[in-house]
Amino acid sequence: MSAQDRLQAVKQHLTPDQERANAVDPVASMNEERAKAAFNIRELTHLLDGGEKATELRERMMQEIERDPLFKMHDIHDISKEELRERTMEKFRSLIHHLQNESVDTFKKRMEVISLIDPGFWTRFGVHYGLFVGALQSNASPGQLSYWFEKGALSLTGMVGCFAMTELGHGSNVPGLETTATFDEASDQFIIHTPTLTATKWWIGGAAHSATHAAVFAQLIVKGKRYGTKCFVVPLRDPKTYNLLPGVNIGDIGKKMGRDGIDNGWIQFTSVRIPRGYMLQKHTKVSRSGTVVEPKLQQLTYGALLQGRVAMVVDSGNVSKKALSIAVRYAAVRRQFANSKSNGIETKLLDYPIHQRRLMPLLAQAFAMHFTGTEMTAMYNSMMSRLDGASPGDPDMEEIVEMLKETHSTSAGLKAFCTWNCLNTIEQCRQACGGHGYSAYTGLAGMYNDFAVQCTWEGDNTILALQSGRYLISSYREAMKGKKLSPGVGYLNNLNGLIGKRCQVQKLEDLLRPEVLIEGWQVVCANVVKNAALEFEECLKNGLDVDDAYEQCSQSRLYAARLHTYGYLFNRFADGVSKIDSDLKNILMKVCMLYGLYTVEENSGAFLQYEYFTPKQMEFIRSQVNVHCKLVRDQAIPLVDSFNLSDFMINSPLGRKDGNVYAHYFDQVKRSNPQGEHPYFNRLIKPMLERDMDGGDIEDEEAGLEEEEDEE
Amino acid sequence: MSAQDRLQAVKQHLTPDQERANAVDPVASMNEERAKAAFNIRELTHLLDGGEKATELRERMMQEIERDPLFKMHDIHDISKEELRERTMEKFRSLIHHLQNESVDTFKKRMEVISLIDPGFWTRFGVHYGLFVGALQSNASPGQLSYWFEKGALSLTGMVGCFAMTELGHGSNVPGLETTATFDEASDQFIIHTPTLTATKWWIGGAAHSATHAAVFAQLIVKGKRYGTKCFVVPLRDPKTYNLLPGVNIGDIGKKMGRDGIDNGWIQFTSVRIPRGYMLQKHTKVSRSGTVVEPKLQQLTYGALLQGRVAMVVDSGNVSKKALSIAVRYAAVRRQFANSKSNGIETKLLDYPIHQRRLMPLLAQAFAMHFTGTEMTAMYNSMMSRLDGASPGDPDMEEIVEMLKETHSTSAGLKAFCTWNCLNTIEQCRQACGGHGYSAYTGLAGMYNDFAVQCTWEGDNTILALQSGRYLISSYREAMKGKKLSPGVGYLNNLNGLIGKRCQVQKLEDLLRPEVLIEGWQVVCANVVKNAALEFEECLKNGLDVDDAYEQCSQSRLYAARLHTYGYLFNRFADGVSKIDSDLKNILMKVCMLYGLYTVEENSGAFLQYEYFTPKQMEFIRSQVNVHCKLVRDQAIPLVDSFNLSDFMINSPLGRKDGNVYAHYFDQVKRSNPQGEHPYFNRLIKPMLERDMDGGDIEDEEAGLEEEEDEE
Repeated sequence: MSAQDRLQAVKQHLTPDQERANAVDPVASMNEERAKAAFNIRELTHLLDGGEKATELRERMMQEIERDPLFKMHDIHDISKEELRERTMEKFRSLIHHLQNESVDTFKKRMEVISLIDPGFWTRFGVHYGLFVGALQSNASPGQLSYWFEKGALSLTGMVGCFAMTELGHGSNVPGLETTATFDEASDQFIIHTPTLTATKWWIGGAAHSATHAAVFAQLIVKGKRYGTKCFVVPLRDPKTYNLLPGVNIGDIGKKMGRDGIDNGWIQFTSVRIPRGYMLQKHTKVSRSGTVVEPKLQQLTYGALLQGRVAMVVDSGNVSKKALSIAVRYAAVRRQFANSKSNGIETKLLDYPIHQRRLMPLLAQAFAMHFTGTEMTAMYNSMMSRLDGASPGDPDMEEIVEMLKETHSTSAGLKAFCTWNCLNTIEQCRQACGGHGYSAYTGLAGMYNDFAVQCTWEGDNTILALQSGRYLISSYREAMKGKKLSPGVGYLNNLNGLIGKRCQVQKLEDLLRPEVLIEGWQVVCANVVKNAALEFEECLKNGLDVDDAYEQCSQSRLYAARLHTYGYLFNRFADGVSKIDSDLKNILMKVCMLYGLYTVEENSGAFLQYEYFTPKQMEFIRSQVNVHCKLVRDQAIPLVDSFNLSDFMINSPLGRKDGNVYAHYFDQVKRSNPQGEHPYFNRLIKPMLERDMDGGDIEDEEAGLEEEEDEE
Repeated sequence: MSAQDRLQAVKQHLTPDQERANAVDPVASMNEERAKAAFNIRELTHLLDGGEKATELRERMMQEIERDPLFKMHDIHDISKEELRERTMEKFRSLIHHLQNESVDTFKKRMEVISLIDPGFWTRFGVHYGLFVGALQSNASPGQLSYWFEKGALSLTGMVGCFAMTELGHGSNVPGLETTATFDEASDQFIIHTPTLTATKWWIGGAAHSATHAAVFAQLIVKGKRYGTKCFVVPLRDPKTYNLLPGVNIGDIGKKMGRDGIDNGWIQFTSVRIPRGYMLQKHTKVSRSGTVVEPKLQQLTYGALLQGRVAMVVDSGNVSKKALSIAVRYAAVRRQFANSKSNGIETKLLDYPIHQRRLMPLLAQAFAMHFTGTEMTAMYNSMMSRLDGASPGDPDMEEIVEMLKETHSTSAGLKAFCTWNCLNTIEQCRQACGGHGYSAYTGLAGMYNDFAVQCTWEGDNTILALQSGRYLISSYREAMKGKKLSPGVGYLNNLNGLIGKRCQVQKLEDLLRPEVLIEGWQVVCANVVKNAALEFEECLKNGLDVDDAYEQCSQSRLYAARLHTYGYLFNRFADGVSKIDSDLKNILMKVCMLYGLYTVEENSGAFLQYEYFTPKQMEFIRSQVNVHCKLVRDQAIPLVDSFNLSDFMINSPLGRKDGNVYAHYFDQVKRSNPQGEHPYFNRLIKPMLERDMDGGDIEDEEAGLEEEEDEE
């Protein structure tokens, strides 16, 4: 018996009155949607998670965290910043326990689940283990690394670290940092100093109330000569008392848009002395006598930096899934406006074509980001394992450098556009919940505030997108010189075949094949990259230097990066779906086509500009977006169910799996706001209501003044 | 001596070192920008404010509010919801004083200034004076109105009102509200009742802690018959004690995304009895014996409802100005990356073409919303004054109804797209401030959270945009029948001239004339409206009823509304500029052309789809957006200066007029986060750092268990 048959069977046993009551009951509405599943939901969960075992592990993690009293989340919207920060610190210890006792893979899964539940805590923990320990690993010599690990950097005994790179006046431009580290040969020490207000270390996570040590990025100065920005470990506080050490001044950065669990601070150093050995000397070395030895090759140190970006692509997919779980489930039970034939029963939001238009393309996009994030992670891991095994003289070094460049550029573009897409998804989901989206308890407002930082940290999105655009221009120029490019930009080796090409389909229906859209993206991207490169070369001809020329054509670079990244997302999604050999392929192909058609429509200006599609074809694509929205809408609840996020993780009454949204929402609001004494009736309201009315007006009495009548 | 000459003169007296120090000093950077003014800033302020007198009044208001200790705003990001709500109530009384003692125009200006400083308070005050008193004015008979005014509704003596329309399960669909008002003939009373959970009144501003009375919208039931939704005054609390009255249950809605100064609540009525006279009977009347007299003509009552929408168009312009004051001023002093020729001096953000691209179109859009808001206000006032003076039989009644329909539809589209534009402007400005945009103290995060509600309240934006699209379709169909349409949609009377028309300019430079873009918008809008109408008629032919047919083509309706509204904004901006006969015309024409070119580029898909512009022309427009961004950038600081928002109003260290952003920011962070005792070092951190390392691991001792060695 199919799900549809079961649904029909159930319906046949209802009286008209029961049917009507059932129809407005949100739980019945949700069950009705779930019964429509045309695929095996559990199987799709396994596919998304990367196998049955991975699903089981994730479910174990969800359960463990839900049961941990430290991770209670139901009151998170009503506690103060101070309470939130203290609670966040409490979780630290419990996580160390797991870190020490479980496998790396298990712990990674735990952190992935936590990042979706409590991003503020995830950041605070990540500051020590990701940024501080990461800085040690990237910059310390083997002996130095052992020293800091023995001091407790891994076990969090005797020290907690933070990462002090950004300054009040300096963010993206690391070589422009002002903090100085001057070698004092007499004492064999470095003097760490903040010379100006703008050199104040700023936004330093963990500095306000957690860290004993900082990895400080400062200008190395030896015998009056500057050697650029290096990394130094600087003790900040006495671990026994948490008193600030001499010359260290630290303050709290205070209230932020979100992630208030993390205690960002500012730091000023006033001639703080540290031993010479506290400069991390894996690359540049400073000897006892002040001889500076710089590395022969600029090391390929930025591989590790890419990890954060790749993680943010994956996170963009995950957070989108969470937001969509709320908005799509709410839309399946929320009813609004009855029509003439509905017997007074209001229509589900999800049945409105316009609501399908609002949510279904975003649902498809979440899948696109999922498939791309998975692929990007594999690409990063494979690149890193080759990089780790390689040494400068290796014959395949050139290939590895190409891989690194491609991963660098692709992850830059994806980080930018995926975090933007996710932030937009959250806001669209919030608005799709109508007025209730404005309540803190429905979860989307806080999600927006927590996520927003991803668009500016670890590389401002605009700057990253421009980097990606720069790579596209240089790839184009290399292709023109006959170089074979790496796969992601391989289409630029086929410029003659692509420039000027038009869509060749016989019938409009043939547009609904992924390969047509993939070719379309290649044609459009080849054109915009070529235009950007020609603009760049024109700038060079006009006498600009390379950097100025790139600045001058930055809008074209950004546009090229945008289109290339969208094309890439579709390409990876389509490729991922093509490899599936189960029944799931059917539904995922619909989702994939919706994504493809929608992104073409969104960028119709480019497809028409380069005449790949005719206006008539574009009109057909526009209408097919509607058709595909409806197809995906039909399976919308099974699709978000496949994300398999527990009610605890989603933490929104509107996103509850059972569909009983109003009861859960009312409960949450009552529990969070217990009725009590009026806080200020006697002080403020009563005197206002009972005031003497004359008191409010300016008296218009003459107050003894004798005045003559005005003459007329 | 011109400003440029003065600047040169100053520069000539500097030594190279002074010049370099000056160059990185943010105050000097700001002065440099201000000295570029090519127009009289004060004159532009007068133009924007509507005259010198209006500017002076606004400045007086800014000063009065800044000096009022109740309106202190520097600590607003760090106080709790409870403190914020109490402080908000405190301001109530001070405002009543002004309401009673100053002219309506002065008070309106005061409220306009306050709405930009403290939108939460503005809402709380507006709930009583705008919504509750407004409900009385729209629905009470003259005698009833006097009754409530005498009871204290105007003076806020003995009563505070709230507006109870929305229910937990019912928002936009007012006829679908569930709350009942059943006439009990025996007692000559109405029984107000909340029959279900979803009928709970929800989001009611002022209900939690302020209101004694509510204007309740409920289903009128007399002798078993339902007469639709009417308005009833229901006492909630005893004004002497604030105890809830029998049958009334009220709770606090709690934490929201923003505007926490307003105490939204929920209300459940359990057989609450009110006198028959508490039903407001301006329109429908219920007699002592239960005879219901319904009005002959459905009254034109929704004129007053439009006021809120028009105000939101104006507000979108104002809030955009505030956000842009911050981001543009910060961009004028923030420096990032040095280039090879800059002597180590980093480049101003504002000098990056990409940063100009991020902010200048939004600056132009703020002007477009300003001019359109001013015009929309005039249109609304003229419509209302004619409506107030008219009676049903008047010969010009048909024309007035047309005006009302046009104002209704135009304001619906403008409310939707202007609030969306403004929300986007805030977020783009926030991201343009880089990491600092994530700090609460820089103001943009809170501005986003406060403003976000405007996209869903007083008509959800999507629903309003669809209303506008419906009007466009029906206007098209009327035009086809030969009816002369009102000016805003007048282009639909010229379909033959517009459909299929292509841009006729000889040279590309001729595209830079407003009339070309205006014609382009008309051609594109005529096409999309026509397509939407044809799609609608196709649905009718396929047997759908009118409402279903409109739903089916909702995406086309939304698209038509979007393009029509963008075209309208440009049209009004260009019209406003064309009427200026001073030197200001020069700069405003540049701003206007930037807006026009940018919106064409943003909607290039439509302009290419209908082949008004060729791909080559579109490429030129794209490049001209860059050119115009640079032109406007040159005057960017003088332009935001002309908005004339005081530092107190802007309340962001990054938006300070003097440009001394880092000093102000550091001061604010220190003042808001005084250093003190560590809040939880002894309880949480010390035990973690000093813990016995073995304690963290699961013991791997055998604990007495005898085990045999595994055989290999």
